[in-house]
Formats: sequence, structure tokens, C-alpha cells
Amino acid sequence: MAALVNGTAAHTLELDDIYAPGLFHPGAPIIAAALAVADQADASGDGFLRAIVTGYEVGCRVAADLGPEHYRNWHTTGTAGSIGAAAAAAELLGLDERAVAHALALSATMASGLQQTFRGDAMGKPLHAGNAAQAGVVAATLARGGVTGAPDVLEGPSGLGAATGGAASGWANCRAGAGRGLTVGSISVKPYPCCGHAFAVIDGVLLLRERGLAADDVERLEIGTYAAALDVAGIARPATVPERRFSIPYLAAVALTEGAVTEESVERDRDDGRFSELAGAVALKVEQTYEERFPSRRGARVTAVARDGRRMTAEIPDRSGSPQNPLPQDRLEQKFLATATAVLGARSRDLLEQVRGLRHGGRVCDLFLGGQESGTA
Amino acid sequence: MAALVNGTAAHTLELDDIYAPGLFHPGAPIIAAALAVADQADASGDGFLRAIVTGYEVGCRVAADLGPEHYRNWHTTGTAGSIGAAAAAAELLGLDERAVAHALALSATMASGLQQTFRGDAMGKPLHAGNAAQAGVVAATLARGGVTGAPDVLEGPSGLGAATGGAASGWANCRAGAGRGLTVGSISVKPYPCCGHAFAVIDGVLLLRERGLAADDVERLEIGTYAAALDVAGIARPATVPERRFSIPYLAAVALTEGAVTEESVERDRDDGRFSELAGAVALKVEQTYEERFPSRRGARVTAVARDGRRMTAEIPDRSGSPQNPLPQDRLEQKFLATATAVLGARSRDLLEQVRGLRHGGRVCDLFLGGQESGTA
Repeated sequence: MAALVNGTAAHTLELDDIYAPGLFHPGAPIIAAALAVADQADASGDGFLRAIVTGYEVGCRVAADLGPEHYRNWHTTGTAGSIGAAAAAAELLGLDERAVAHALALSATMASGLQQTFRGDAMGKPLHAGNAAQAGVVAATLARGGVTGAPDVLEGPSGLGAATGGAASGWANCRAGAGRGLTVGSISVKPYPCCGHAFAVIDGVLLLRERGLAADDVERLEIGTYAAALDVAGIARPATVPERRFSIPYLAAVALTEGAVTEESVERDRDDGRFSELAGAVALKVEQTYEERFPSRRGARVTAVARDGRRMTAEIPDRSGSPQNPLPQDRLEQKFLATATAVLGARSRDLLEQVRGLRHGGRVCDLFLGGQESGTA
Repeated sequence: MAALVNGTAAHTLELDDIYAPGLFHPGAPIIAAALAVADQADASGDGFLRAIVTGYEVGCRVAADLGPEHYRNWHTTGTAGSIGAAAAAAELLGLDERAVAHALALSATMASGLQQTFRGDAMGKPLHAGNAAQAGVVAATLARGGVTGAPDVLEGPSGLGAATGGAASGWANCRAGAGRGLTVGSISVKPYPCCGHAFAVIDGVLLLRERGLAADDVERLEIGTYAAALDVAGIARPATVPERRFSIPYLAAVALTEGAVTEESVERDRDDGRFSELAGAVALKVEQTYEERFPSRRGARVTAVARDGRRMTAEIPDRSGSPQNPLPQDRLEQKFLATATAVLGARSRDLLEQVRGLRHGGRVCDLFLGGQESGTA
């Protein structure tokens, strides 16, 4: 139950991490499952972190193999998420090799999450992450008790790949050996609360602004990026909060006028004439450089044309928050504090210290005790 | 959690009920979900039974629409089971029309269960029923709290039908109005603990035995039935308990020599020469009469050829336990008592009375109290 609730909560703000090659949000299902098991098992911080790394390694490989065909109808965060969550839970429960295999197999046969749920206005999308977290915990617990799954549940003729249109890659990532760097080191962290395909553009606009570009001077913004960004985040005239999160013109105008893109940026409606003029002056096109590098690298070029004809250009080969252009430590901490403070208030800084202490002898249950002692958890 | 455990337990013995047009075992997921919610909500027996009928009506219609293409890779008891379980839970929670729709939609996006899990020796199959029961309870509970699902989650371009190869019928059963008889009245109940495709053959052999056929007289058994029965239950020389459940020659020989097919019949290995001779003397063929009536009617013809050349024939147009040839009340009670006594001992007869009393003012929680008072629940 803890896994279900935490996993759902973790995906609700659309601020969670991304494994780009897998079209996958690993953190919500995997960390939620690990947290639920670690709490019950009174795990060490070290064991908890190792379980998360294990869950990421398994879940991200499965996600990358399921691939874009799977993602057409399925939400990989729900499907590969179940399997990653099971791997994390199995690690914390100390299962042997055979039982780990059965835990993964059982979690795969509980994998779910339909794309249709987020093609409209429904609230079910984050439930996929929560349900995956729970499935992973249930699968690992059953496997510990001796329940067996089908060893060929991924690649068999009626297995997950065949049933969901996935694994055109022949499970190459899953079959690959170790020694190529852990996937947990290739995770993107969202710096802005909007569609990740808009990040490189926002980065470019903010860079130009730092170099002295003023919103009032701008006649036109020319944006070149990869096609998927325009397909997914090309909404020209967004009318609702969800649409604003998927509108590069809107987000570019926000970045230019306000110097930041925050939750408030997408929640507040702007009826300002100059703002609309700016958003309307954003021209989008596909640029071959970025198209060729997609999906492993996601960049953009932003050119501002001033009223007097001068041009300023920023090139962002890799969006901020990506493995190639990671957020600096202080940006990560700011993100944590800004998000956590809304719920925990001043205690969020204490929690950050506790999380930091996990790998130096801290215990997972201390995170919870800290909350209970101050009487608000 | 109760739904998960009860749903899994209910499907483990492979003795649960069948909605033949939907390739679906409705009871395990739906009754488990209803029982969990009714127990927590202290529901009346009447409300509990109404919830089960509601769950069957919804789940069986979805199952029939998902159809055989869905069943190639998916276990309908897991997928349609989630939706039927949600309908039952929603009825018990008293949700209004809008919330019921969201409960069904949320349960659909948690639907799971891969065929691969029971193509081999794994124990995960009954987990599909348990997981479906749990998903239904979670979905209904969330919908009660205002969580919304996608209203087009079944028929949308990335909905359950498209994602799982189902609903070639265009959701005709789901769209059909009321007034054609409830599906709960068209359920098959298993009289024997083996593959349902063997039932008509067993019925025929037992009928011949009642008419005086003796195993020692038999030279040959000729069996004509529909093709699917031979595809699924045509194993000629079964070596394990699961294989014996799917072997018409073995089961026909058991029925002829012992006059019954019980759990013991499939669990005990027979190395008797005459038995093997009988099982080896069973000839199977597809017979057009039965082939044309499948899948809504599942019959067989059994002809015994005696050593002296005489022939005896039994025609079974519909297997026993089917809606067309239902089990008499005393056979149903025998089945309940034989199954429940293994766990409850003498108390199983009391429980039967309590279950009977549900529609005459009994309460669901009394079923449990009865167990607790005798100290073994």
C-alpha cells in the first residue's frame, strides 16, 4: 500500500526523472518500491541505495528494449516500472539468483498502464507508477515465499514483448553484460515543470537573456530542434495548464520575459498583449543536426532577431538535466527544497541532510522518524 | 490485500467457474473483490450478491468483446477480471454513475496477465485473478475519492482493445442494452478438476458405464468432438498432474474404470497395464456436429466398441455444468462440501447454510465471524 501511494505521488507533479533511451520515468516506481520494503525491513541506507541502483539497471534495460513501439499503446513507466520495482524489492529482501528471476517474471505478468489514460484529461497516469511499485513489491514478496514465474515471460511467444509490440531490439539491452556503465548514471533530471522536449529551447532562451537579450528588443525567435519536440510540444496557442506544459512557444516567451520557468509559470494565465506577441513570434523548424542526434541527445538552437535586425544565437547540444549536461549540485538541491518545502516546510532541509547521510551509516527508517517527531508526518 | 489473496486462492485449484463466450473465469476476481469490500463495509448479503451480479455482467461483457485474439497473449481472467472486479466493488461502495465509469476506466489501465505465464510450469496464473481483484478494489476506492480515468480507455486508439489485440467485435456486447438475460445466468460450473474441454467426453463415458458398460469388455473407445478440445486436451501420454488434467484419453479411461473423475484421479499415477491399454485404445476425431456448435455449446459423442463387436453410443450435446446442461443443486452442494471440507472440516456445512442465508437477511461479516468463533479462521 505504501508503494502504491508513494509511487503515485511521485509521478503526479511530472517532475520526476527520465531515462531517455527507454521513454521511462524510473524513479517513481522503483524508489517507491524500495522505500516501502526498506522501511518495513529496517534497511540500512547503503542497502536502500544499492536496491535503487539495481532497480534502475533492470528497469531501464527493459524499458530501452521495449522501445517506441511498446510506448505507442503502453506507458513504459507502468510496465518496465513493475520489473524495475521488483528488482529493487528483491535486492532489499536478499533473494537468491533463482528467486530474483521469479520476482522479475511475476512482476512482468502484472505489468500494466495504457497510453489512452493520458491521451485525455484523466488523472490515472501517475497511478501507473504507483501500481508498478506495488506489483514489484508483491512479486518480490511472493518469490521469497517460493512462488514461481515463467522464465520466458519477456521473450516468449505470448510474453510481454509479443503482447505489447515491444522489444524490436531483440532484448539487446537486457542481454548485454555488465561493464558498460550503470544506467543510473545516464538519467535526466527535469529542471523545469514541463515537457522535456522544451528544455533545450528554454536553456537557449535563458542563455541569450544572460547575454543581455531583453524581451522588449525581440522581433522574432527562431527555433531549430528535433522533430519529436515539435510533434509533442509544438502547441501554438495553449489554453490550459497541461497544454502550457507542452507549448514551446509559450515556454520560450515565459523564459524570455521572466528569466525562469517555474510551476507558477504554467499555472498562471497570461493575458498580456506583449507576452502574446512574443509567443506568436516564435518560429519552429526541424534542424537536421538535432534530428540526427535524437533520441539519445536532445538539443536546440535559438536565434533571437532584434527589432533593429541584429541576431543573437545560442546552441544547446544537450538539454540541461541530461547526462551530457547535468544539473549542478546546487540546482538539484534547489529543486529538492522547492518541491519538498511545499509539504514539509523548514524540515525539508533536515530531510536533505538525512538523505545525504544514507550512504554514511544512516538508516531508512530514520527518514520517517524525523517526520514523526515533529508531529506532521 | 484480502482481494489479492482471495482472488489468487480462488483460481489456484482450477475448479472455478467459466463464462465460455468470454474465455473467462469470472468468479475468482469478481467475488474476491466483492468479498473484500463487503467485509470492510459490513455489507448486507443482499448487497453483496447484487455486487457480484453487477461484476459478472460487466466483466463477462468485456471478456466476450476482448475475444480470442486478446486471449492469444493475454489472460482474460486478469484483464476483464479487473474491470468486473471494479464494477462489483463500485456497486458495494455505492458510487454514482460518473464514479462507476471512472472506476471501470481506472481498473482497465491496471489490467494485466500474460499467457506466457501459463504456457510453462510457473505458478503465476492464479495471481492474475488475485491481482485483478485488487486492481478492482483500488480503482473503485480511488474513483470514490474523485480520481478520474479515461472514458475511452477501452475503445480509444491506445486503449485496451488496440493495445491487446482485442475487441474485434467492436465492443458489441458492452454496447448492447439490458433485457437479454444477465450473463450470471450463463455461467458454466466445473464438475471435474480438469480441462473443461474434456467434460463432455467424461459425461459420455460415465453415461455408458451407468448403462452397463464394463471396463473389461471394452476393446476401443471412439470419441468425436470439436477441434479445440483435441488441440487443448488431446495429450496422448500424460506424464505429470497438469498433463493428466489436459488428456482426454487418460480422463476417459479414469471415468470408465473408476466411475468418477476426482482430484485424486489426476494426482495419483497409474502404472496398471489394463489402464494403460484402455487409455491407449481411445481414438479421437473432430465431429462436424460439435465443431459447428462451438464455442457456445461444447459436446461430444462417445462410442464404446466391445471385444465381441457390440457398440454402445452416448451423445452429450452440452457438457455437464454448462448453462444448457447445468449441475443439479445436489451436485453443486457436493462440490462445495468436498472442496471446503478439506480446509474447514465439519464447519463447511455451516458455511453452506450461511451462504444460503445471505439473500434472506444474512450479513457478509457473519461468514467471517462464524469462522473466528470456532477459532480456525
